[in-house]
Amino acid sequence: MNTSALYHRPESEYAFLYTKDTMRIRLRTERDDVQQVGLIQGDPYLISFDKWYLEKTPMKKTLSTDLHDYWEIETQSKFHRLQYGFYVEGKDGTEIFYGDQGVFDYKEEFLEIANYYFRMPYFQEIDRFHSPEWVKDTVWYQIFPERFANGDKNNDPKGTLPWGSKLPDREDFFGGDLQGVLDHLDYLVDLGINGIYFCPIFKATSNHKYDTIDYYEIDPDFGDKKLFKKLVDEAHKRGIRIMLDAVFNHMGDYSPQWQDVIKNGEQSKYADWFHIHSFPVDDYDMTDIPETARNLSFDTFAFTPHMPKLNTANPEVQDYLLDIATYWIREFDIDAWRLDVANEVDHHFWKRFRKEVTAIKEDFYILGEIWHSSQSWLQGDEFHAVMNYAFTDNIKDFFVNKKISPSKMVSGMNHQQLLYRDQTNEVTFNILDSHDTARILTICNGDKDLAKATLAFMFLQKGSPCIYYGTEIGMLGDNDPDCRRCMVWEEEKQDKEMHTFTKKLIQLRKEFSEVITYGDLNWRTVNDEENQILFSREIEDTLITAFFNESAQSVSLDIEGECILSQNEVNLESGKYSIGNHGFIVVLSKK
Amino acid sequence: MNTSALYHRPESEYAFLYTKDTMRIRLRTERDDVQQVGLIQGDPYLISFDKWYLEKTPMKKTLSTDLHDYWEIETQSKFHRLQYGFYVEGKDGTEIFYGDQGVFDYKEEFLEIANYYFRMPYFQEIDRFHSPEWVKDTVWYQIFPERFANGDKNNDPKGTLPWGSKLPDREDFFGGDLQGVLDHLDYLVDLGINGIYFCPIFKATSNHKYDTIDYYEIDPDFGDKKLFKKLVDEAHKRGIRIMLDAVFNHMGDYSPQWQDVIKNGEQSKYADWFHIHSFPVDDYDMTDIPETARNLSFDTFAFTPHMPKLNTANPEVQDYLLDIATYWIREFDIDAWRLDVANEVDHHFWKRFRKEVTAIKEDFYILGEIWHSSQSWLQGDEFHAVMNYAFTDNIKDFFVNKKISPSKMVSGMNHQQLLYRDQTNEVTFNILDSHDTARILTICNGDKDLAKATLAFMFLQKGSPCIYYGTEIGMLGDNDPDCRRCMVWEEEKQDKEMHTFTKKLIQLRKEFSEVITYGDLNWRTVNDEENQILFSREIEDTLITAFFNESAQSVSLDIEGECILSQNEVNLESGKYSIGNHGFIVVLSKK
Repeated sequence: MNTSALYHRPESEYAFLYTKDTMRIRLRTERDDVQQVGLIQGDPYLISFDKWYLEKTPMKKTLSTDLHDYWEIETQSKFHRLQYGFYVEGKDGTEIFYGDQGVFDYKEEFLEIANYYFRMPYFQEIDRFHSPEWVKDTVWYQIFPERFANGDKNNDPKGTLPWGSKLPDREDFFGGDLQGVLDHLDYLVDLGINGIYFCPIFKATSNHKYDTIDYYEIDPDFGDKKLFKKLVDEAHKRGIRIMLDAVFNHMGDYSPQWQDVIKNGEQSKYADWFHIHSFPVDDYDMTDIPETARNLSFDTFAFTPHMPKLNTANPEVQDYLLDIATYWIREFDIDAWRLDVANEVDHHFWKRFRKEVTAIKEDFYILGEIWHSSQSWLQGDEFHAVMNYAFTDNIKDFFVNKKISPSKMVSGMNHQQLLYRDQTNEVTFNILDSHDTARILTICNGDKDLAKATLAFMFLQKGSPCIYYGTEIGMLGDNDPDCRRCMVWEEEKQDKEMHTFTKKLIQLRKEFSEVITYGDLNWRTVNDEENQILFSREIEDTLITAFFNESAQSVSLDIEGECILSQNEVNLESGKYSIGNHGFIVVLSKK
Repeated sequence: MNTSALYHRPESEYAFLYTKDTMRIRLRTERDDVQQVGLIQGDPYLISFDKWYLEKTPMKKTLSTDLHDYWEIETQSKFHRLQYGFYVEGKDGTEIFYGDQGVFDYKEEFLEIANYYFRMPYFQEIDRFHSPEWVKDTVWYQIFPERFANGDKNNDPKGTLPWGSKLPDREDFFGGDLQGVLDHLDYLVDLGINGIYFCPIFKATSNHKYDTIDYYEIDPDFGDKKLFKKLVDEAHKRGIRIMLDAVFNHMGDYSPQWQDVIKNGEQSKYADWFHIHSFPVDDYDMTDIPETARNLSFDTFAFTPHMPKLNTANPEVQDYLLDIATYWIREFDIDAWRLDVANEVDHHFWKRFRKEVTAIKEDFYILGEIWHSSQSWLQGDEFHAVMNYAFTDNIKDFFVNKKISPSKMVSGMNHQQLLYRDQTNEVTFNILDSHDTARILTICNGDKDLAKATLAFMFLQKGSPCIYYGTEIGMLGDNDPDCRRCMVWEEEKQDKEMHTFTKKLIQLRKEFSEVITYGDLNWRTVNDEENQILFSREIEDTLITAFFNESAQSVSLDIEGECILSQNEVNLESGKYSIGNHGFIVVLSKK
């Protein structure tokens, strides 16, 4: 047995309180190396009296990556204290005990030593990871406000181009605004989404508004606070939650604070609001790369002088940003913050942030923009989840980019899920595209069947899915700025079939929220030769089975139950189907 | 190569900010499986422009356990942002790239993908782990106050036994007090220690005082606040720091709070101060095991009804305990808290605790009593270190208990060091015995040479060592209560030779504090057949080499430099020694 591949870490995604009384425990072993794993557990103060180490409870092999198998168990403890270790039997027959001091022979002389065990010393409800329930039933819709709808011509900035008159360039304005969103709320209700994720709406210079000038003002091109309040209220009336984009890593260089630094240099009262290495701050040269300078005397987002990085270690800055964070909840009742470049802001700040926003609104949702593994932000006292790029990239790399095999995709998806506690996975934010990436239909080379299969596949995974505005009507768009085209409202230019499909998919996600959120995931067939995948989601008496065919050939499939979603499938006879290229079928059965 | 044994975790003991500008990175591989490891690193926003992934910096193989090798590197980044991955070459010639998405072939097609890398997104000084400098130069002396010295007969409790008149039983009182400590401060100065760790001194029922009645009062058997203030001041004058024992997991059942619960049941205003499942709370039966009941209707420390567990999730309790924690700093200027049963108190509380105590005294030392792996308390916002039982148990298990081989000891010691950031290891608290364990000389079966070798070996390791009162004069004592014998003050009954040795050892630890705290550790010979160990500690031009012989035979050794400590050694000629059983030699050389 490969004992050097074993890994466990108490009080992490490997051992966490799931409910008040229930601990979930994971163990990593080398893939296909281990026959069985048992949890040895008991109260730390009873080990020598009860000799509980003489018993073990089988753990279940759940998800695997290309290198590892993971074993899981849910357990309880009468006195809310847990001392535990693992019995591991290799396929070669070796039996070992793995605990806090490493690997030992599975013998009583080692098992009886109290200090050889891992500990979850007490089930601390106050430290438990809590996530907002409503997110589990939410399907999001991302709006880039300058491009969704122009509902008020009066607030159009100077030089606004006619709606959809051209493909967007970096500096274009088309007049999209909040009135446009309000006007189309019922369109969104009809689509079925119940959460809107807005790109920034605060006063800023650019069309994307990531270069904030004033966090307390709605950008006048978009509307005003009264209108925003109305929008939130009307959305709430329709059961739609609102998530705003908080750009707290940096400010816009046209903000009064940065302007004061430019003007007053070291004497500016805002000099310590940023990370400035020397003055003056405006002595730099732009390079050929857009928005990029290399010889900056201050820290920025990436290398753009337009976005000086905020010093969130400064208590004044913290107070300022936290007042903003709470202001929009207190006054406008927003439901969630999406935190831009969240990984480059310090933990100290996010811990304060979590405390203050959830103190006002207990079920507030905090979503970090992080593209890499994020355990240190997801310990229960900072974010609830991150934007799940690393997870959905696997889906795109198989389905769309044809870069990886089905089994590599499954490995990658499982790897991501195993980085976090279940509470995070249940509310994670799954997207295939956004204002930062090319649109899904474009990377599918316009193949709508492929785009739909990819969407359907993502919607059946844990986490709350998000539709980027226009995907539902078949909009195209390459990398930024092309992915920010004006929403198409002329019905004749909308893809009605795509729209119907998206509605159905959203409906299905909401109807089967329980099994999709909490259900076991079983990868039943992962066929690299034929590019076919069969998996199931299962909870109590509900079983959903899904088959996706990404081979060029049709394939016949025997599957019992009620077909609840499908594409390119022919029902040959009861329980028998032929599934074509990019075809899929999702079947429901009650046990 | 065994790729499934690889492990790395960003923002943990595997990747942490060491100084403001310096990141330390570790990687785990299977033992003896890997030829070389290189760090591939650069700024996340420059990967596609600078193609920094084409270069790599060699990492150094440092400590090993029986299963794993660890590779380390210290690195910097101009813009304080780090994207990184590992080049690993197996002894079998395999070359791979290991990053945030797992293991890939070492090929440009994978190396160029930004999302395949780990991230330390920004060097956050505010999140950096800081530990108090003074602890690195401190040698502690643990005092169990009831047994150190009786300086004031007037405060002796009823039934006090004559000092040292018998071996202690569980309920005995001998009259030790704070005046006794004050009287012997100069004894401690002469010994050379510069930190006193006091077992509890607050008002409580028992002789050990872990069942607190009033955290705001010095136990009247020990003295009063005025006397304690004087003791702290006199200690400080002599350069001695004071650490008190904070028992915040539970209270004594004679505390007014618990008495109120007994009396008023559910109506008590303290009902929510504890974890009570049903009332009344005094309806239980004691078992044959001391201080143990099994049918308790409330949570306790272990199973003792005398120590009801505090509900530290209750803000009232938090405020109460935090006022106590800060009161003794504000009013008496203590330097450190040792936190009893720290693992069973919630993280939420300890994070508040850290903030509030360090706000008053920046270089305050926070030491948790935890016997198992403790990463989740040592992230920089709770404790500085834990009582290093798991580390020193390895030393005892080899030297004293003869249970493990030298290589198993080394593996276990390395394993413990690799659980934590260097900042923790530099201030960890190393003990061989305490009021909770049998005394070192007793488990050595009275073999003073063996006890001295064991002490010397521990003193040469990272961390601040602690002497349990009386060890320096050769006191014996089996498990509690026998390890709590009265200190022997009659000079004729003290072991003078042991005293001289201990003084010398303390002096050496203080003189060579820098190399012991920061120096590289190299295990140069670990001989399981002959039970011999040769290791060195090295920093800049200082090199300390130590050899320990635990075989029955004498062994000859060639070693250059100045002998700064030794035992059972014969200097045959310059640089040539014969080292007998339990013999050792510590040699200093300047490079």
